[in-house]
Amino acid sequence: MMKHFRDEDKLVKEITRHFLPGKQGELRLGIGDDAALWRCQPGFETILTSDWFLEGSHFLVEKHPPDSVGWKCLARAASDIAAMGGTPRCFLLNLALPDEATGKWLESFLKGLRRAAKSLDCVLAGGDTTRGRRILISVSVIGEIREGQEVLRSTAQPGDLLYVSGILGEAERGLRLLRKQRGTVNRKNPAMRKHLYPEPRVELGRWLAERKLATAMMDLSDGLSTDLARLCKASKVGAVIDAGRLPVISGVAADFAGQLAIHGGDDYELLFAVSPGKAALIPASYRELRLTRIGEITRSRGVRILGKAGKSKPLPAGGWDPFR
Amino acid sequence: MMKHFRDEDKLVKEITRHFLPGKQGELRLGIGDDAALWRCQPGFETILTSDWFLEGSHFLVEKHPPDSVGWKCLARAASDIAAMGGTPRCFLLNLALPDEATGKWLESFLKGLRRAAKSLDCVLAGGDTTRGRRILISVSVIGEIREGQEVLRSTAQPGDLLYVSGILGEAERGLRLLRKQRGTVNRKNPAMRKHLYPEPRVELGRWLAERKLATAMMDLSDGLSTDLARLCKASKVGAVIDAGRLPVISGVAADFAGQLAIHGGDDYELLFAVSPGKAALIPASYRELRLTRIGEITRSRGVRILGKAGKSKPLPAGGWDPFR
Repeated sequence: MMKHFRDEDKLVKEITRHFLPGKQGELRLGIGDDAALWRCQPGFETILTSDWFLEGSHFLVEKHPPDSVGWKCLARAASDIAAMGGTPRCFLLNLALPDEATGKWLESFLKGLRRAAKSLDCVLAGGDTTRGRRILISVSVIGEIREGQEVLRSTAQPGDLLYVSGILGEAERGLRLLRKQRGTVNRKNPAMRKHLYPEPRVELGRWLAERKLATAMMDLSDGLSTDLARLCKASKVGAVIDAGRLPVISGVAADFAGQLAIHGGDDYELLFAVSPGKAALIPASYRELRLTRIGEITRSRGVRILGKAGKSKPLPAGGWDPFR
Repeated sequence: MMKHFRDEDKLVKEITRHFLPGKQGELRLGIGDDAALWRCQPGFETILTSDWFLEGSHFLVEKHPPDSVGWKCLARAASDIAAMGGTPRCFLLNLALPDEATGKWLESFLKGLRRAAKSLDCVLAGGDTTRGRRILISVSVIGEIREGQEVLRSTAQPGDLLYVSGILGEAERGLRLLRKQRGTVNRKNPAMRKHLYPEPRVELGRWLAERKLATAMMDLSDGLSTDLARLCKASKVGAVIDAGRLPVISGVAADFAGQLAIHGGDDYELLFAVSPGKAALIPASYRELRLTRIGEITRSRGVRILGKAGKSKPLPAGGWDPFR
């Protein structure tokens, strides 16, 4: 078990110990200097993204296992790189900790973070540590993509077909189970696992980008209804989705599963648009990850949903928004 | 005056409005997509750094003008790039705000931030916004440096001469004035200005790196006694500094000025080592910024200080540490 830290340098040392060796591949200089040095491959561009992960907003210290906090803070930031079709390479970790979290909590947090870093092949390049009243995490991920291969949010065209990966609403279901539960977390429950240890769809995103199969793409972090509206706004188009086609969870009432799929956040699945001419190239699953056609892009603005009766109605953005 | 925000998308829009146009130079895609796209110049490497700037730890909302918070959160992160000899290019802003800071406070904050971004020619590339109980800021700066020109902390050699830029202890003096003061901040006081609006020494750092004049370099953020010990530890050397040579502030008792220079933080001046053969190439000032030789690197470990009597004694690290 780790000792509590009396100074910042010791804390940095403990973090570094978990991540040695600091250098890898194109990361020429890691933790320990004023800044890190990183070299993008020739013919590639650098992708930059940064995400909050805050106690009370994004996780609950009394509910979420610390290794899940470590895993998820990196996974969700890396998901933004996947959403462009890119590959995460290294990350910066800003960590503010109250004294009581510098012992066992930190050790377990770092284990989860290291596991995610290994799984994503994304190395720790640096960051900043300080004392905080609550646990505050900010993660910046640096990725790369071959020039001209990036898939944006803003390039969907009317007539494109809309797809999602995986099952929607699963992470929200996991969160609800977690909130109700007392005692040890059941990591074997698929919904719980998806909420605690989401897997950014890096391989799928890269495959779609390399083959130029997607006209537009983003990751689903705040819920389909909120995120699809963002994609449509950026692309200056609308969309209609078919409620009956959504890949929903099983084992709960159909209406509830539908609501979770439409408004539930934190799935980190990919939402992407495909021109009709390329639809035949999209398989039913990619490396065991289900791909589902859920609707299409329309010229008329706004997001609509097609119900059982075959009539469409407007779909209000009902996903997660920290300011609501 | 800005309206308070009801949702995150509007807040992002307001931030973006302050920074248009989002693209510039090598930043090909700015705010609004999942991530930003940035292209490093051929023959250059990317420098990565990330810093906290937290209410209560790094600034006091009741004391620090919001435009100073905006200026300083970027300036201090950019200082890490200067400390490698590099040039800041773009940055990611993670911002968590309580409701009461989304109006006038935010507007003034963004003005200060924009002014720093303009002065540093460093553009906003993206980031994340959320609601917070206190104002939380995390800034990642992306810079670049020509391959092989970077100046590290870990490469000082015994016999090298030690230099600092500017005047030491000035920012700490400014902080003390600010703490005591009631009412409007006197921005004309040089110490106050240095505390509120520090200027990273980008041009000096670049000049030293391009001409290969410095064997090792870092920026002074936590105070000379703390930071010099870090440089020595990284380089596996020691140092002796001459108390009588330190560039101190005037207008206060000599002993007090000395203590401020040795332990005061937040100056963001550069500390650098120069091999004796190149000492003649270091001018007394660079573009009106004073350069002072304050001591030298020794083979024997530890940092010592030479007093008036010509006797040296160990100098304990007494600078700022959030965990102390």
